[in-house]
Amino acid sequence: MTLLLSDADVRATADMTRLVDAVEAVLHEENDGLITMPPRVNVASDGTVLRLMPAHLAGSNLMGYKSFHGSMAKGVRYLIVLIRADDGEILALVDAALLTGLRTGAASGVATRYLARPGAADVAVIGSGLEADTNLAGVAAVRPVQRVRVFSPNPQRRAAFAGRAGDALGVEAIAAATAEEAVAGADIVIVATNTGTHGPVAYQGAWIEPGQHIVSVGATSPFLRELDPACFDRADHVVFDATPEQVFDESGDLIAVTDAGRDRLRHATVLPSVVAHGFDRGASDVTLFKSVGTAAQDIAAAKVVYDMAIERGIGRQIGVLADAKQF
Amino acid sequence: MTLLLSDADVRATADMTRLVDAVEAVLHEENDGLITMPPRVNVASDGTVLRLMPAHLAGSNLMGYKSFHGSMAKGVRYLIVLIRADDGEILALVDAALLTGLRTGAASGVATRYLARPGAADVAVIGSGLEADTNLAGVAAVRPVQRVRVFSPNPQRRAAFAGRAGDALGVEAIAAATAEEAVAGADIVIVATNTGTHGPVAYQGAWIEPGQHIVSVGATSPFLRELDPACFDRADHVVFDATPEQVFDESGDLIAVTDAGRDRLRHATVLPSVVAHGFDRGASDVTLFKSVGTAAQDIAAAKVVYDMAIERGIGRQIGVLADAKQF
Repeated sequence: MTLLLSDADVRATADMTRLVDAVEAVLHEENDGLITMPPRVNVASDGTVLRLMPAHLAGSNLMGYKSFHGSMAKGVRYLIVLIRADDGEILALVDAALLTGLRTGAASGVATRYLARPGAADVAVIGSGLEADTNLAGVAAVRPVQRVRVFSPNPQRRAAFAGRAGDALGVEAIAAATAEEAVAGADIVIVATNTGTHGPVAYQGAWIEPGQHIVSVGATSPFLRELDPACFDRADHVVFDATPEQVFDESGDLIAVTDAGRDRLRHATVLPSVVAHGFDRGASDVTLFKSVGTAAQDIAAAKVVYDMAIERGIGRQIGVLADAKQF
Repeated sequence: MTLLLSDADVRATADMTRLVDAVEAVLHEENDGLITMPPRVNVASDGTVLRLMPAHLAGSNLMGYKSFHGSMAKGVRYLIVLIRADDGEILALVDAALLTGLRTGAASGVATRYLARPGAADVAVIGSGLEADTNLAGVAAVRPVQRVRVFSPNPQRRAAFAGRAGDALGVEAIAAATAEEAVAGADIVIVATNTGTHGPVAYQGAWIEPGQHIVSVGATSPFLRELDPACFDRADHVVFDATPEQVFDESGDLIAVTDAGRDRLRHATVLPSVVAHGFDRGASDVTLFKSVGTAAQDIAAAKVVYDMAIERGIGRQIGVLADAKQF
């Protein structure tokens, strides 16, 4: 049977600890060569876009894809189709608007588990949208967060974010008047913005402090930027969640790095390798996790939501597609 | 609102005349450069496959994709996601097991409308599965079919097909003991098989008669064959429904042609061009339509089914995906 899960259903089943563990497990599978992810397909024209991100998880008898469709002018939607691989039955159709944010946060949680200092408690957030919320939740799932400062250009939005974060985590959370003020002294900096190529970039390499762990999840298209090139120069360890080639193609942050930086970053570590082999950080090392998201993360997150929905009786059963072999 | 349409719903809305006209209209759009279809994506391993076929119909404010998933061992399913392009809202999720057969038949109907002799009334069918039914229906929508002979290796299946075809079209329909007997004297030959690379190929160039129009819709994977290479040598006009490159990649029939044949067929006509510019056949010319199916045909067919389902109140409304811009 196929389960239809709305955005409200996803919200009702959101459990960041399980999501972080599921994404960590799928990263192990990826490192073991059990996951196939062909390049994303993009069909775009006149401001509308259709993007398809398929994956096959051979070790889990799962396959599926996420589609992203619409336009920034009129509306964008995300759908994940979760499929049992061997017989092609669709397990779930999942609204992935919220889930995409949750899976990005979960991947950042995994990266932070391996890369950040063990006692990291002081977190700065640049950005106040969905990804700011979910990435803070991912970080808080793996580190003893005590203090949060947020900067976002809109005073109302940053105040609202501080209120939500303080309530959700039960910690001190304050809105800062500038990005520099927010990040000063932070153990972990989360950058989750939609800043573009004009005007100041959200986070500057000059602000980096020794021992800092930086999580950057915005700038996932070539025309967006949120880290200046100096961030990549100052980081002792850069970790991508996808192949360097993919990150170079998709993120304006990487397109902006110098030629020398590009050559160096072609050998940056990828998160599946970190998860499989562990990571030894020096106390003053600067670590930078740059995420563009992967279809394997999507499928892993959708499977967690599906399992929890089945456990709790959430969602709507909508029958199954016919087996085409019947004809 | 998103409409969920099951295979039974598709069956209830099946109208081959409307499907043929809709596919013809989308072929005009394709010839006008209004349609974007990136290459299909295939993820396959160990007998399981996930195939995604996206398209954007800029002139119709539609986009979408078909996915095909599962394995021949345990089950395969087809899903079409029909999307209003500008705001990304999913108009319909459509079980496409039957619909794939219908759209293939509709494309063959368009090809037959332009390529077959006007009075063609005598039809041979090789094959007795879903595609044999739907392609005969497509041909019958555009030509005054009076007589049908069918060959399929299994006597029960060919007899059953003859019974169905006679009932559906109100014509004489008989099962033939051999393929050669079925095709002798036919104005139109429909080849719709899953014959493979071993054993006899379903249709032989030696059987072609002057003036014949051949419709071949099987052999849509590299390891299947249903036309021998002589068919391509003897045809005066070969028309593909996709680019020659795609047909060469996907059909074992083309992989088997000689090098000289390949060079010639690289310049074969495509169906959108035939529809746009018309076609003058000599009375004794042999025409061969080789179809592998396209995502644009799928989207056009899904739109017909969606429109008819809305008109008749068929299907189930299942809400809409959240607009991700809301976050």
